[in-house]
Amino acid sequence: MTPLYGAVEAGGTKFVCLVGSGPDDIRAEARFPTTTPAETLGRTFAFFREQRARHGALAAVGFGSFGPVDLDPGSPSYGRITSTPKPGWADTDIVGAARAALDVPIGFDTDVNAAAMGEWRWGAALGLDTIVYLTVGTGIGGGGLIGGRPMHGLVHPEMGHTWVPHDRAADPFAGCCPFHGDCLEGLASGPAMRARWAMAAEDLPAGHPAWRLEAHYLAYAVANFVCTLSPQRVILGGGVMTSPHVLALVREAVVSLLNGYVQVPAILDRIDDYIVAPGLGARSGVLGGLVLAEQCARA
Amino acid sequence: MTPLYGAVEAGGTKFVCLVGSGPDDIRAEARFPTTTPAETLGRTFAFFREQRARHGALAAVGFGSFGPVDLDPGSPSYGRITSTPKPGWADTDIVGAARAALDVPIGFDTDVNAAAMGEWRWGAALGLDTIVYLTVGTGIGGGGLIGGRPMHGLVHPEMGHTWVPHDRAADPFAGCCPFHGDCLEGLASGPAMRARWAMAAEDLPAGHPAWRLEAHYLAYAVANFVCTLSPQRVILGGGVMTSPHVLALVREAVVSLLNGYVQVPAILDRIDDYIVAPGLGARSGVLGGLVLAEQCARA
Repeated sequence: MTPLYGAVEAGGTKFVCLVGSGPDDIRAEARFPTTTPAETLGRTFAFFREQRARHGALAAVGFGSFGPVDLDPGSPSYGRITSTPKPGWADTDIVGAARAALDVPIGFDTDVNAAAMGEWRWGAALGLDTIVYLTVGTGIGGGGLIGGRPMHGLVHPEMGHTWVPHDRAADPFAGCCPFHGDCLEGLASGPAMRARWAMAAEDLPAGHPAWRLEAHYLAYAVANFVCTLSPQRVILGGGVMTSPHVLALVREAVVSLLNGYVQVPAILDRIDDYIVAPGLGARSGVLGGLVLAEQCARA
Repeated sequence: MTPLYGAVEAGGTKFVCLVGSGPDDIRAEARFPTTTPAETLGRTFAFFREQRARHGALAAVGFGSFGPVDLDPGSPSYGRITSTPKPGWADTDIVGAARAALDVPIGFDTDVNAAAMGEWRWGAALGLDTIVYLTVGTGIGGGGLIGGRPMHGLVHPEMGHTWVPHDRAADPFAGCCPFHGDCLEGLASGPAMRARWAMAAEDLPAGHPAWRLEAHYLAYAVANFVCTLSPQRVILGGGVMTSPHVLALVREAVVSLLNGYVQVPAILDRIDDYIVAPGLGARSGVLGGLVLAEQCARA
């Protein structure tokens, strides 16, 4: 019998919880707004206890969490959200609380590393071992797998806070990142688009110049990730990327920027298959939580 | 008895060859200019045959090579320099020629991944598993280890060809990269400094504004690598970095750019120990070749 797992996409605006063993076997799903840690984690644990009563024991539960988080198993603050500016959430011990409440092994990683793992296991990155997953929405976040393992290192990537060229003559918008002004997130997140054009990204029509500018910044970022990490595929998810033509504009701009320097067929001849949308749509993150659960159950 | 290995730093301007088992046991070393592949590889193989006659068999030979190179063991062009613009060197089969000439296992990676491995084994990155090594000289190249393994992926990193913000009002120099104009290499390599200031980097005095501008660009790049890869340490080598104060200026600018966003003591409190010079000086690359040899002898 296939073991059942729990998965949580713990986002800054909402939590998505799921019980199942994969995208074709989802037994239950719930989503609720992220309020206080006590209330939000309380609802999360109540959901899993209820599902456990209905479907039987869960072998493990995996959390893909907003951050920054501590991923170092040797650290005293392992499993915590650390220095987030989100009110009430700094120093929240996700793994400790989950272990105490559910008494099963708890997998834990960033939301974007989890999404990359979901895409690697069931989505757009099947069979690959070095991939980047970038989400462009309320914020911009990136993670990935290198040699089949999620990216950790000193802390974990913060790809939204990299810098790209910003021509202030062409785009005088100063950027809206409270830490960095015109880093990628400051120039190209959903809130940046809203601040620059006085209109929400979802309301900007497909032919609006906003989209070519958006693709321009994202293409610089993707080209930088390509030259820094040499991924086998780049997956672009998040709300801003659901606009119909932006993915095609990003691909075109990346090829133009790289200008033949990285001479591989994946980029020169098959860009549509190199920079792609998530195969799991909006569920990459929560399904990645199932992969985290699977892996920690086996460890 | 410790096995003896051969190592080669195969650079675009010179080849450095060495026989030994580590930095404290170097039996012989030779360097010669990079001319044609036949002549340069001929001298390389002759050196190892001569040393073998003197010191006994070599267990393996490792090459850290200029690129781009093919690192995929499953590819028909594995072990070759591929699409380099360097006259005569495109499609040169380093590994095939070395196996045929020396009849020992041949390790192979980029020059910068090799340098990272040298620093990891004996230099400034002892005990770490996720590091970036950047060389700033005639070109700018970067590599590293992630989770203890050299960075490969689709091809290998080309970190010198990432983009950083370029304020043309403050620095009207257009950049000198033939592919990208004002990518990092186009703005901050040795030739870029010479073209901008009409003076070679080594002749620019320590207080010259060139150095603050150089540190400014390198700091953007380092901050981007920190946010993309989350390395445990960043090692900056190469000719340009031997100028006395530039490393300190880079550290200062990185801290200022990140602006407290990555809240870890390594960056907030110990930046001098986070962004460092190579522990092996100019020998990181060739000693890294010994590590490549060791690893392939064991495989």
